Amino acid sequence: MKHHRSDDIAQLPSRFRANLINSVTGYKSCNLIGTKSSEGMANLAVFSSVMHIGSSPPLLGFILRPLTVRRDTFTNIKELGYFTVNLVSADMHHRAHQTAAKYEKDVSEFTAVGFEELYLDGFAAPYVAESTIKIGCQYKNHYSLAENGCLLVIGSIERLYYPEEIQDTDGFLRLDKTDTVAAMGMDGYALPTFLNRMSYARPESESIILPDGT
Amino acid sequence: MKHHRSDDIAQLPSRFRANLINSVTGYKSCNLIGTKSSEGMANLAVFSSVMHIGSSPPLLGFILRPLTVRRDTFTNIKELGYFTVNLVSADMHHRAHQTAAKYEKDVSEFTAVGFEELYLDGFAAPYVAESTIKIGCQYKNHYSLAENGCLLVIGSIERLYYPEEIQDTDGFLRLDKTDTVAAMGMDGYALPTFLNRMSYARPESESIILPDGT
Repeated sequence: MKHHRSDDIAQLPSRFRANLINSVTGYKSCNLIGTKSSEGMANLAVFSSVMHIGSSPPLLGFILRPLTVRRDTFTNIKELGYFTVNLVSADMHHRAHQTAAKYEKDVSEFTAVGFEELYLDGFAAPYVAESTIKIGCQYKNHYSLAENGCLLVIGSIERLYYPEEIQDTDGFLRLDKTDTVAAMGMDGYALPTFLNRMSYARPESESIILPDGT
Repeated sequence: MKHHRSDDIAQLPSRFRANLINSVTGYKSCNLIGTKSSEGMANLAVFSSVMHIGSSPPLLGFILRPLTVRRDTFTNIKELGYFTVNLVSADMHHRAHQTAAKYEKDVSEFTAVGFEELYLDGFAAPYVAESTIKIGCQYKNHYSLAENGCLLVIGSIERLYYPEEIQDTDGFLRLDKTDTVAAMGMDGYALPTFLNRMSYARPESESIILPDGT
């Protein structure tokens, strides 16, 4: 068993520390965030920090690194007021990763990596046509984290698109049925296999495994 | 393709909406947070919202639901100043799920669900002995989200324990090698299979797949 204390973590080479700390908290979501600049240029960026914030009202969030360099995604979200979150399937993850490259301002990542820019039902921000699950969001707020300058951006879920056949009768989406990937650390990808769903936990009885399609 | 707009999402039965919205953002981390009350009672609770916040300094965060009911985890964290984050392997996930049951205040979830409470190297909060990856954290701060009353709790990473054989030479942890699970929605669990790691994305060249053990 390897053991690190905070003082020796601080002494690790920065890339080694970044790989370690980014991977130790567990699997992450893997999503493409689609935005559009005030000049009409579509932008696409891979994020592993999109998270559930609440269901009523439906809210999601994501962590954005400090605004010390150009952050097109945030600038566009603030200007347009809308963005999309597009889940990444296994056959998309190489291209999704490549959106992290720092392209020139006049290059859209959609074109550069080969995804189709899609506009649906009058929504202002572009979706990724190849994503089987697409979420249209409205910017709501952001919180600056005093500890390191990162931002937590909050959006409301305004539109949802997903294949009906992946939904259990109680609303749950079986992400494994669309080969949705999970992110590991800064550059790793994994394909999860569904284990089971568990019943609501109560003190007086052990949770049981729910039947598929619950 | 099923399509929801915000107005019909709001009309969905609340449990159906919760299952849908909790699962649509992608896979999540699955962790047990260990704390201790001022009376010395150990507490353990499963969370699917633990996230990477930063590497330098090493920080993590998690989302806590509104403080409208008893939240032992948060009370204990504020009182003790420390907590642990323990990753969940496939053979632990039934018990981990069961920690969500609302046990009486004089019952420790460690005892109730059958995990061993472990204290390491003088750290004040209890670890889960069965977890192969353990993180000791110090409470740093919390942010109240005006949108729905949730809290984002921030902790610094003070201690790390993991099996040396799961670490690539550049620091990255291969969580799949310890059968770490990912969470889906409110009650689903999945076991990810490693796909690959990708090289640092640059505009002038396509990202390549890195060799294993990078």
